[in-house]
Amino acid sequence: MARNIVSREKDYSQWYLDVIKAAELADYAPVRGCMIIRPDGYALWEFIQKHFDEAFKDTGHVNAYFPLLIPMSFLEKEAEHVEGFAPECAVVTHAGGEELEEPLIVRPTSETVIGHMYSKWVQSWRDLPILINQWCNVMRWEKRSRLFLRTSEFLWQEGHTAHATREEAVEETLKMLGVYRDIMENVLALPVLAGEKSEGERFPGADNTYACEAMMSDRKALQAGTSHFLGQNFARAFDISFQNSDGELDFAWTTSWGVSTRLIGAIVMTHSDDDGLVIPPRVAPVKTVIIPISPDETFLESDLLPRAREAQEKLNVVLGKRSVKIDTAFHMRPGDRFFANIQKGIPLRLEMGEKEFERGVFQAVRRDSGERFDIPWEEVEERVPRVLDEIQNDLYFKALEFRKQNTFRVSDLEGFKEVFAARGGFVEAFFAGGREEEKLIKEETGATVRCFPMDNDESGTCFFTGKPGARLAVFARSY
Amino acid sequence: MARNIVSREKDYSQWYLDVIKAAELADYAPVRGCMIIRPDGYALWEFIQKHFDEAFKDTGHVNAYFPLLIPMSFLEKEAEHVEGFAPECAVVTHAGGEELEEPLIVRPTSETVIGHMYSKWVQSWRDLPILINQWCNVMRWEKRSRLFLRTSEFLWQEGHTAHATREEAVEETLKMLGVYRDIMENVLALPVLAGEKSEGERFPGADNTYACEAMMSDRKALQAGTSHFLGQNFARAFDISFQNSDGELDFAWTTSWGVSTRLIGAIVMTHSDDDGLVIPPRVAPVKTVIIPISPDETFLESDLLPRAREAQEKLNVVLGKRSVKIDTAFHMRPGDRFFANIQKGIPLRLEMGEKEFERGVFQAVRRDSGERFDIPWEEVEERVPRVLDEIQNDLYFKALEFRKQNTFRVSDLEGFKEVFAARGGFVEAFFAGGREEEKLIKEETGATVRCFPMDNDESGTCFFTGKPGARLAVFARSY
Repeated sequence: MARNIVSREKDYSQWYLDVIKAAELADYAPVRGCMIIRPDGYALWEFIQKHFDEAFKDTGHVNAYFPLLIPMSFLEKEAEHVEGFAPECAVVTHAGGEELEEPLIVRPTSETVIGHMYSKWVQSWRDLPILINQWCNVMRWEKRSRLFLRTSEFLWQEGHTAHATREEAVEETLKMLGVYRDIMENVLALPVLAGEKSEGERFPGADNTYACEAMMSDRKALQAGTSHFLGQNFARAFDISFQNSDGELDFAWTTSWGVSTRLIGAIVMTHSDDDGLVIPPRVAPVKTVIIPISPDETFLESDLLPRAREAQEKLNVVLGKRSVKIDTAFHMRPGDRFFANIQKGIPLRLEMGEKEFERGVFQAVRRDSGERFDIPWEEVEERVPRVLDEIQNDLYFKALEFRKQNTFRVSDLEGFKEVFAARGGFVEAFFAGGREEEKLIKEETGATVRCFPMDNDESGTCFFTGKPGARLAVFARSY
Repeated sequence: MARNIVSREKDYSQWYLDVIKAAELADYAPVRGCMIIRPDGYALWEFIQKHFDEAFKDTGHVNAYFPLLIPMSFLEKEAEHVEGFAPECAVVTHAGGEELEEPLIVRPTSETVIGHMYSKWVQSWRDLPILINQWCNVMRWEKRSRLFLRTSEFLWQEGHTAHATREEAVEETLKMLGVYRDIMENVLALPVLAGEKSEGERFPGADNTYACEAMMSDRKALQAGTSHFLGQNFARAFDISFQNSDGELDFAWTTSWGVSTRLIGAIVMTHSDDDGLVIPPRVAPVKTVIIPISPDETFLESDLLPRAREAQEKLNVVLGKRSVKIDTAFHMRPGDRFFANIQKGIPLRLEMGEKEFERGVFQAVRRDSGERFDIPWEEVEERVPRVLDEIQNDLYFKALEFRKQNTFRVSDLEGFKEVFAARGGFVEAFFAGGREEEKLIKEETGATVRCFPMDNDESGTCFFTGKPGARLAVFARSY
């Protein structure tokens, strides 16, 4: 076990912070609640971004940039929205040496300012749909912060679309939920439940919110992304109206959807172990590290390093530019060098000392399982990508299995309490309650409705109200 | 001439705004001095980013993210820095419903907060160099804004590096200036003078500033990027100290360098004409547009569109995904469709009506020259990339020729005034003055020292002070 990382068993919260610190993903900023995303954390974010951005563009979306500062009065135009966000706002009151006439808030999300612009850009049905996404920083003031999971400033993308019909907007909301799920599962190796949120967990101003919910290794839930059907609420508030093809004036139907740097927290808490970070290969900036080891400098320079460079070049072609690193920390002891790379979460190590050199192989070590095996030099190009694919799959299925083993079905409140107190995890139950009932359940159990999973169409008697025909809900403690 | 764009001759400032509006690159935001970068403007920014980011990574730099908000006290640690930036700051005084103990400024640039973090990360010479870049938004409050050129909020990259020796930091400063110049010339087709800034134009807190200066089509200069050698100023202010390899404590040497969305303004004002935007092919998000034209819907659907799609697919392979668009605005008149694509600055149009279809060709039209010629269908893959390369080169050399024709050498103040009043442009003169003399020259002529070009090692008598051994300076009015 790592000396600089406490075990999950002992203190999960501290383990999380230790893993991030050891991997140099992030650091707390001098401003309370804010973070610095360090190069290795940011490279991970760039890979996450790349996959989502490509999927957004493939589904017809374009990127744009809207201003950081929003007039306070904009927020107030949508009643639920201001109620939800005003308490978390950072406010600019002075600028250019003068007090401002109207205070400006640092965007907590951009529905309002984007709504304002859409009202200018949309006149006719021919101007619709608008399918815009924005990558940016947002600010929601936090008293208690936690790196990546809850910080006053974070990075995210926010998609904002406007449509001529309700059907089209609902379709978009669900389509983007599907895009999220696809990338979370197939790239980040995060099994997620995609589903509808309950009344009490809806986005302020939305008619309906959908989310992808993942189980962390402490059995708590993490909301990994959300997609909102905003109805005509923001269109009415900001007058996004248009002449439809029949010549009548109508309000547009809008959606918004987002994922954030929080996903890095999800990766940490899904895949990592007591030795430190584990990154799924498909999203790992460095997919393989080659570690030449010898106390003999001449041997290193004339034999090991040239071999390492040759393998690096070949692998960078198949795995992507800069995917393979050579560890050259020769001033450190071999054990410390292994450990540094383990804690960085690099999926595969290729170690090579004198013995391996003589046999013409690398000793490969999987980060996830610790499994060791030889890869002959001439087979690296073919074997390494295959091993990385195996690691990717294994990580996904391990997490999926963990979720299955920690998901329990209950049919009444007593059973709920008993199971949840003893085992935690996800509790499935038919539920037909509203905000009030959700509040009571949270008070009694500590659990909230995470979602009504989409791919489940069972119905039954509500475990709490006794109403028949209730949908299946998943409850959990959440981040 | 375009009805929605005033001519450069008539009103250059209005022409600039008209071109941006017609191309839908940007819009003013509801907050004074801020802008919205619209999808077509943002796509251009993404292409600019891609080229710079790749070059930064190829030269060993990594990206990271530092916080938006900076404690006011940080700014005050470097005397010149606070003097330069404090008057332009936007200040957050309230957050989370409470007044803050210390006001926070929205970053105008990040030397201070990054210096603070480097002091924590750097202990030994082994921790150096740090080669970090950040892509982000910054805020410098402006009374008089101008889209892309001067807005209260803008997007940029800021590189911040720390080194063990002065020599290494100077080398880095000049290396990044070279990277800037290379991309500006070879990708953005902007001929630039790379050189040292004068005392009066230095970055607040820098020992030395270097810049790339470009000539716009109104003969004024635009500073397109800067690279600063910060000496040990910020290292002392923020205590970035380290034990060198001899075991002695030393302060690090730092640099910073940046380019911003201002480059979009440079592209507009260098290449565009009275018909609207012109984008150099290498940085154009859409490099070619195919325009099928026919009033006959059946013919369009069954003959023209399949041909267009076939060419699009082939070209997207050689030019890059999503590089080729098909214009499907069939509800518009052909003339309006041509015009819309002209104003968007798309480098090459491939028009195809009934006549072209019968002959098995596209009629190609170059955006820059208006030149028309046929490209047989079977030759598109080979011809189009070649034509785009020609356009790229022609744009660069046209701009270079324009700069040459508008650069004048003078040897005394009378000559300076005469030439500058009559012709404007760049005025070359030997100059050995300091801040005081720069100020006097500006008052008398309206011109400032843009830079002392690096690739010129002539020396002569200062035109203003009469001192011998003066370096050659380039003066101009500037944005």
